[in-house]
Amino acid sequence: MNQTIKAVVRYDGTDFSGWQVQPGQRTVQGAIEEALERMAGQPVRIAGAGRTDAGVHALGQVFSCVWPGPKRPDELRRSLSQLLGPEIRIDSIEVVRDDFHAQRSAASKRYAYAICQAAEPDPFLEKYAWTVPWDFNAQRVNEIAQRVVGRHDFAGFCSSGSSVETTHRTIHSIGVLDGPVTGPPDTSSVWHIEFHGDGFLYKMARNLVGTIADIARGHLDESALDERLSAPAPYHGYTAPAKGLFLVEVRY
Amino acid sequence: MNQTIKAVVRYDGTDFSGWQVQPGQRTVQGAIEEALERMAGQPVRIAGAGRTDAGVHALGQVFSCVWPGPKRPDELRRSLSQLLGPEIRIDSIEVVRDDFHAQRSAASKRYAYAICQAAEPDPFLEKYAWTVPWDFNAQRVNEIAQRVVGRHDFAGFCSSGSSVETTHRTIHSIGVLDGPVTGPPDTSSVWHIEFHGDGFLYKMARNLVGTIADIARGHLDESALDERLSAPAPYHGYTAPAKGLFLVEVRY
Repeated sequence: MNQTIKAVVRYDGTDFSGWQVQPGQRTVQGAIEEALERMAGQPVRIAGAGRTDAGVHALGQVFSCVWPGPKRPDELRRSLSQLLGPEIRIDSIEVVRDDFHAQRSAASKRYAYAICQAAEPDPFLEKYAWTVPWDFNAQRVNEIAQRVVGRHDFAGFCSSGSSVETTHRTIHSIGVLDGPVTGPPDTSSVWHIEFHGDGFLYKMARNLVGTIADIARGHLDESALDERLSAPAPYHGYTAPAKGLFLVEVRY
Repeated sequence: MNQTIKAVVRYDGTDFSGWQVQPGQRTVQGAIEEALERMAGQPVRIAGAGRTDAGVHALGQVFSCVWPGPKRPDELRRSLSQLLGPEIRIDSIEVVRDDFHAQRSAASKRYAYAICQAAEPDPFLEKYAWTVPWDFNAQRVNEIAQRVVGRHDFAGFCSSGSSVETTHRTIHSIGVLDGPVTGPPDTSSVWHIEFHGDGFLYKMARNLVGTIADIARGHLDESALDERLSAPAPYHGYTAPAKGLFLVEVRY
């Protein structure tokens, strides 16, 4: 009996070529579909809420799929986690209405970007934060970031390679918080920038972090943000590294 | 000009066969000696404060050596860190008295052991904590652990393979703390047990954690600790996995 399920997934993206299935690449979606196929005895296609890039992590990625059995959905979680190994963990699986779709039904998403200020990367944060040698002033970064809050055309922060109907998105809030996003923490100085918005274009979060950081350290004038928001042109600024980014939560 | 130096080192022990040099193995000591030899143009032998096992991590391991130049000791730190790559970071280097020896001069050490309670390992803690499915009661674990505090013959918690003059050691304090080994708490349930003592025998910290855990979950009677402390016999109990252990600090 076919049932639509919704699963919440946590993964360390370090050794994956991102979420989306690509021929010849090890991807998170590919690993999950392979495990589901082993259990179902037939191919199972899943839809992820967000297509995280290579090296990007997730605490709360969501996927949906039609599950053909034979296992009952509530027995799936543990078996699936065990098949997947330690880099991917399925935190919950629930049966949902047939019209649920992890990406199209999403109301908003939270992303967090971790930054560590240190002369050299910390061994325990190397894969989970962007290490910067310049003086990270959390209050200043927060002030700059507030300019992004609201509804804007984010085409100027979208890297090429995406095809979307509209490049308008609403950022509900941005906050700068102490400490790493998750995982083994550290005595070094670590912060994370949290974005909550109704959607994020291709590399938008990392491009926003890159521009905010360049303004904070004085490499760009503060007006650069407003300019890129008011007169979108292809993004040619700095893209913050993938390893600092976490998809924290998808809300429905 | 030869100078004796003291260095504080942080490393992710996951992909090393422990601290101590072993033929054909990738070890932390081996990696550091190789880098120092490249800079000095001659072999440099270092002495570590503690011989951490394969998979054990360090936030504050200390080593000493006689540095023959040509680089000045205060120029060493950055160059050495860069040669070593992201898994090992040199946090400080200072010139010390000629009679300083990282192991023999040590007054006490702090170790911390991280435990995560979860049905399946968290992808971000998999290499940095022991995941247990049973109910971890921090207060109960702390009560049990207090029996270890004081001066005892720890021969009954020493795995074979060590050769020491005496198996008596003093544990100054043990505490059970919320969260991973340092920093803010994770979203999972994580604690760490911190040991401060004048010395630790081979696998002593991990054997103590194994026995304390077995008592806490009801697999061993509470008297087992006292028995192993009063009538030492070769340890045949559970040894907690290496990946949860961190050498936090060496005091002089």
